[in-house]
Amino acid sequence: MIQAGIVGGTGYTGVELLRILVLHPQVDIKVVTSRSDAGKRVDEVYPNLSGLCDAVFTEPDIDLLGACDVVFFATPNGTAMQSARALLERGVKVIDLSADFRIQDVAEWSRWYGMEHACPDLISEAVYGLPEINRTAIQSAQLIACPGCYPTAVQLGFLPLIENGLVDNAHLIADVKSGVSGAGRKAQLTSLMSESGESFKAYAVNGHRHLPEITQGLNQMGNGSIKLTFVPHLTPMIRGIHATLYAQLDDLSVDLQTIYQQRYERESFVNVLAAGSHPDTRNVKGGNRCQIAIHRPQNENTVVVLSVIDNLVKGASGQAVQNMNLMFGLNESMGLETVALYP
Amino acid sequence: MIQAGIVGGTGYTGVELLRILVLHPQVDIKVVTSRSDAGKRVDEVYPNLSGLCDAVFTEPDIDLLGACDVVFFATPNGTAMQSARALLERGVKVIDLSADFRIQDVAEWSRWYGMEHACPDLISEAVYGLPEINRTAIQSAQLIACPGCYPTAVQLGFLPLIENGLVDNAHLIADVKSGVSGAGRKAQLTSLMSESGESFKAYAVNGHRHLPEITQGLNQMGNGSIKLTFVPHLTPMIRGIHATLYAQLDDLSVDLQTIYQQRYERESFVNVLAAGSHPDTRNVKGGNRCQIAIHRPQNENTVVVLSVIDNLVKGASGQAVQNMNLMFGLNESMGLETVALYP
Amino acid sequence: MIQAGIVGGTGYTGVELLRILVLHPQVDIKVVTSRSDAGKRVDEVYPNLSGLCDAVFTEPDIDLLGACDVVFFATPNGTAMQSARALLERGVKVIDLSADFRIQDVAEWSRWYGMEHACPDLISEAVYGLPEINRTAIQSAQLIACPGCYPTAVQLGFLPLIENGLVDNAHLIADVKSGVSGAGRKAQLTSLMSESGESFKAYAVNGHRHLPEITQGLNQMGNGSIKLTFVPHLTPMIRGIHATLYAQLDDLSVDLQTIYQQRYERESFVNVLAAGSHPDTRNVKGGNRCQIAIHRPQNENTVVVLSVIDNLVKGASGQAVQNMNLMFGLNESMGLETVALYP
Amino acid sequence: MIQAGIVGGTGYTGVELLRILVLHPQVDIKVVTSRSDAGKRVDEVYPNLSGLCDAVFTEPDIDLLGACDVVFFATPNGTAMQSARALLERGVKVIDLSADFRIQDVAEWSRWYGMEHACPDLISEAVYGLPEINRTAIQSAQLIACPGCYPTAVQLGFLPLIENGLVDNAHLIADVKSGVSGAGRKAQLTSLMSESGESFKAYAVNGHRHLPEITQGLNQMGNGSIKLTFVPHLTPMIRGIHATLYAQLDDLSVDLQTIYQQRYERESFVNVLAAGSHPDTRNVKGGNRCQIAIHRPQNENTVVVLSVIDNLVKGASGQAVQNMNLMFGLNESMGLETVALYP
Repeated sequence: MIQAGIVGGTGYTGVELLRILVLHPQVDIKVVTSRSDAGKRVDEVYPNLSGLCDAVFTEPDIDLLGACDVVFFATPNGTAMQSARALLERGVKVIDLSADFRIQDVAEWSRWYGMEHACPDLISEAVYGLPEINRTAIQSAQLIACPGCYPTAVQLGFLPLIENGLVDNAHLIADVKSGVSGAGRKAQLTSLMSESGESFKAYAVNGHRHLPEITQGLNQMGNGSIKLTFVPHLTPMIRGIHATLYAQLDDLSVDLQTIYQQRYERESFVNVLAAGSHPDTRNVKGGNRCQIAIHRPQNENTVVVLSVIDNLVKGASGQAVQNMNLMFGLNESMGLETVALYP
Repeated sequence: MIQAGIVGGTGYTGVELLRILVLHPQVDIKVVTSRSDAGKRVDEVYPNLSGLCDAVFTEPDIDLLGACDVVFFATPNGTAMQSARALLERGVKVIDLSADFRIQDVAEWSRWYGMEHACPDLISEAVYGLPEINRTAIQSAQLIACPGCYPTAVQLGFLPLIENGLVDNAHLIADVKSGVSGAGRKAQLTSLMSESGESFKAYAVNGHRHLPEITQGLNQMGNGSIKLTFVPHLTPMIRGIHATLYAQLDDLSVDLQTIYQQRYERESFVNVLAAGSHPDTRNVKGGNRCQIAIHRPQNENTVVVLSVIDNLVKGASGQAVQNMNLMFGLNESMGLETVALYP
Repeated sequence: MIQAGIVGGTGYTGVELLRILVLHPQVDIKVVTSRSDAGKRVDEVYPNLSGLCDAVFTEPDIDLLGACDVVFFATPNGTAMQSARALLERGVKVIDLSADFRIQDVAEWSRWYGMEHACPDLISEAVYGLPEINRTAIQSAQLIACPGCYPTAVQLGFLPLIENGLVDNAHLIADVKSGVSGAGRKAQLTSLMSESGESFKAYAVNGHRHLPEITQGLNQMGNGSIKLTFVPHLTPMIRGIHATLYAQLDDLSVDLQTIYQQRYERESFVNVLAAGSHPDTRNVKGGNRCQIAIHRPQNENTVVVLSVIDNLVKGASGQAVQNMNLMFGLNESMGLETVALYP
Repeated sequence: MIQAGIVGGTGYTGVELLRILVLHPQVDIKVVTSRSDAGKRVDEVYPNLSGLCDAVFTEPDIDLLGACDVVFFATPNGTAMQSARALLERGVKVIDLSADFRIQDVAEWSRWYGMEHACPDLISEAVYGLPEINRTAIQSAQLIACPGCYPTAVQLGFLPLIENGLVDNAHLIADVKSGVSGAGRKAQLTSLMSESGESFKAYAVNGHRHLPEITQGLNQMGNGSIKLTFVPHLTPMIRGIHATLYAQLDDLSVDLQTIYQQRYERESFVNVLAAGSHPDTRNVKGGNRCQIAIHRPQNENTVVVLSVIDNLVKGASGQAVQNMNLMFGLNESMGLETVALYP
């Protein structure tokens, strides 16, 4: 059995890791840390786990964590980088769900995240944990930078277009809509139901931290020269991301449906829907899937790709477990074979 | 492997059965019928099952269904009673999620459901499928009448009080709130999001079909003489039932918390929460649990019991599978060990 | 024109006062205070007022407020009592939307609100601002204690029963459901959409601050001896309160529908719905109405009264303006003739 | 007083017309037709109007309608065109909220709406009722084609860019999100709360009926040659439209903020928000406003315009009344000075 530790078990990605891992047949949850809830039973704080989890929150302790086989960081940005080296030196595999190791250009990282990086030399060792692109590297990685939620939906949506050089890389648009759980479990006015319920708005149009991550990823897929306009929106639901992607096609004769189906036919967690479909975020709610549909309205050269995920599963904790499965040589789907909750 | 059939696979309890059964380790889904969608792949109609279910909807056919080990009826009232005898005669176990076999008094049934019963002689053979009360009878049953969603939440909440004769049976009140999925997958004005979203109302205050079912159940638990005021409400969420139950305690010295804990300590799917708790429907969303808390405000003689379930799981399809597990000698929790989706 | 001041203009009841008063034909909004937003234009903080309000938030200043004809306190409990005397001494009428002057028994008030009262002698001067009961006293009042949201819905629902001595006062139950805006515009975890959306729960079952206020009100209506079990719930919508009230009728021959209709026939803001109706909170959303229906299920002696209001209008700011209209001899409905927003 | 008739008073745009007109100081509602509810009091069907409207639904009758000064059609497409000529011949002004007179090219109209037009000669007489563009023509019009909801939000957002020839007309994108009330008050599965709540999806990506209307409008604003990719989405809220518009700017030196402010400075119902703002649909809920913000992310040449309206007010019934006010020489804002409901 894999001995697993979770640092920061009281946020939404932390409790989602718990939801998945308590039923994972090859994992024992050995440590769950939380400064605010240390000493409390996990299922007292999260009654959805009642009867399924005997763990007790503890203060973070490098020795306890160092005795694990793998440690997940479900922490705010800037935390994982403080402890990653010590854990790696003890032979612990580290899977970071925050942004600490996602951006290879450390100056760019500092500009967007507003802090100095604590271990810039480790960044190049980190593998970007998007299995559909980096599966082989993930299998032998010691340190995984789990992709952000928006970047997962956007990159999987654009991937076949960019890989195959089919579109004008300098005019990409990602109009993306997220449920409010993406803002995390933080007491802030804008996340109140009275503020975000029954309303819709864009935010951070002039620059969101996921922009450099997406641009880096798209540049690595193809011949570079990516220019992306990325507009995130807040939608009045709890879970789900819907990316609507726009690109200008160079050659109108390509069969996009076939290209997408072939690219993803061996991927367990990416479904290319039938031509003419419109994916609905509810169909991936609670599951680790990405569902994609491709359209070319009025047969013009603008391609519209629709890509949906659950931001907390494929966009965070489910993908983290998918990475863990690969790192430990397990079946990639183990513990992730859940069905989305409908309705 | 158990060969299972589902009649009426296109309503919410049908697709919820599919969600549970596709991952059940001892079940093969052999037949899924739907008059409206016959010929279509199940995962075309329900993309949340994409890649997890190869079944195709078929027209109902007694021979196909008769070759199953168990048939679930996830149909409107009045359907199961038409086919139950033929299936039972072929040795098929029948689990009816509708109301056809729930009421022992056939005249009473006809009065509330507005039709003649097609096989009144079978009613007495049917076992009321509430495992926390009828476990032994369920294990040897051929025909199960699965409890309604409201009756499950209300009966489990009142059970320890009535069984132990602790309250005035003639003055019981059940103020119950349901999510809108309880109204089913039917095109009707009152279920539109524009009509039921962001609003709250009571309905059927002068008489709801679940009243005789609850009253019958409560009468069987204790010494009879039940008089219940039952007020159902529609709450603007999709899944979940919250029952707030009121009863007049005879003896103020009893330790209700202990009585409840002892009654349910061996039940996998009933959690008695710590004293002072308030169960939240989100904590059972997608799971087969009932969570209960007991209060006695101002130490007066009015007991307030709070009881929550997911109406589609413990209130319908999950409980149906729990019954199936018992009927086939499996572990009662098999296929039902899921964690509620939070947030 | 009435010169009006608003203290605490950045909470939900404050902005709701602004929404109503900017269009009131007899009111000039002279002062709006907010410590946190002082110096900002009101319509910058609340873009729904864009183009309709030129006011700028200021620091609270007793001289500026003292120059008004009326001052509304839309502040947390404990604030209005600090300034009320100074304003009253300058001849300013004071309308307090908080709880500072609602409870006549000052020791009881301190027990529930956890502080010493700053001006206990003023409490007896305050008039409880429920116009349907206290209209005459309100007309000549200088200091109004506006009722709480739950107390408004519950008292208007029980009023005809208690006034006429029709029920057993010792066994009253109020099962009440509120939208989340009732928790105010405060950054707290439990009010996040991810926490309170798509879920339903009871809270404060062992004692809510509105209990003594309701009990006091009901005692004053009839012959006293009220015992009330009050269970508040949080429902996943923004605005609206639905009270479901239970009482034991002494005499089954009374015509409750007629009694209610006669009691409220001259009230502009209380609608008694036709027999058999179920009021829906959406039908009063944004309006100052209370809609009520009366039921007697199975013709038994349990009366069920359904009473709905918008917690921010009839439950707070609308009722405050209704009081102001009465205090200044205006038409009671002035500025309040809005239609609820449906859907 | 203007004598007004409403044909089709039982849909959402019909009841919204009633909500506005019952309080309009210059309007008497003389006739409200509804085949399904004929004979019922309007406030029985719509309890939000209780006590505010004495009208009774009647069968449509050309003589009754012909005695009005103005008749609004809040009907499905294809109805207004059957009666418009008869009413116009009697001197009645007609304001059609449906699509019957919006498209000047009758063949194009038939292709998208799937029927023959009943009075193609009247189309050219109809004035497209977007006051911010056609105010003068509206003032003298007898027949108004009220714009659709999506077209209102999109055209007002693009208008200053196209009018001034600032962008590449051949590469426009409108990614638009609508609340579910846009689908109308129709019993259909996809509009159930269980289907559309807590989920987000695009629809009709390959062609929505509002595309030709928008394209026609944008072509008339500038030098033609418009190519628009229009992707509508369904968002889990009841009211509101948020248009996110993308265009390629020709000249990076223009001051877009000033251009927008100047274009709309005399418009009562269009607010250009401060630079850097993100309009929120809640801030226009129930009001007749359009709020707009302009961004140019990373100072690149892609302009992003955010434009929000309430689909039932500025996107339908409020705009219809704005047109009526213009046609009758009233203050354009009369009856429309409401404040959006927040929260």
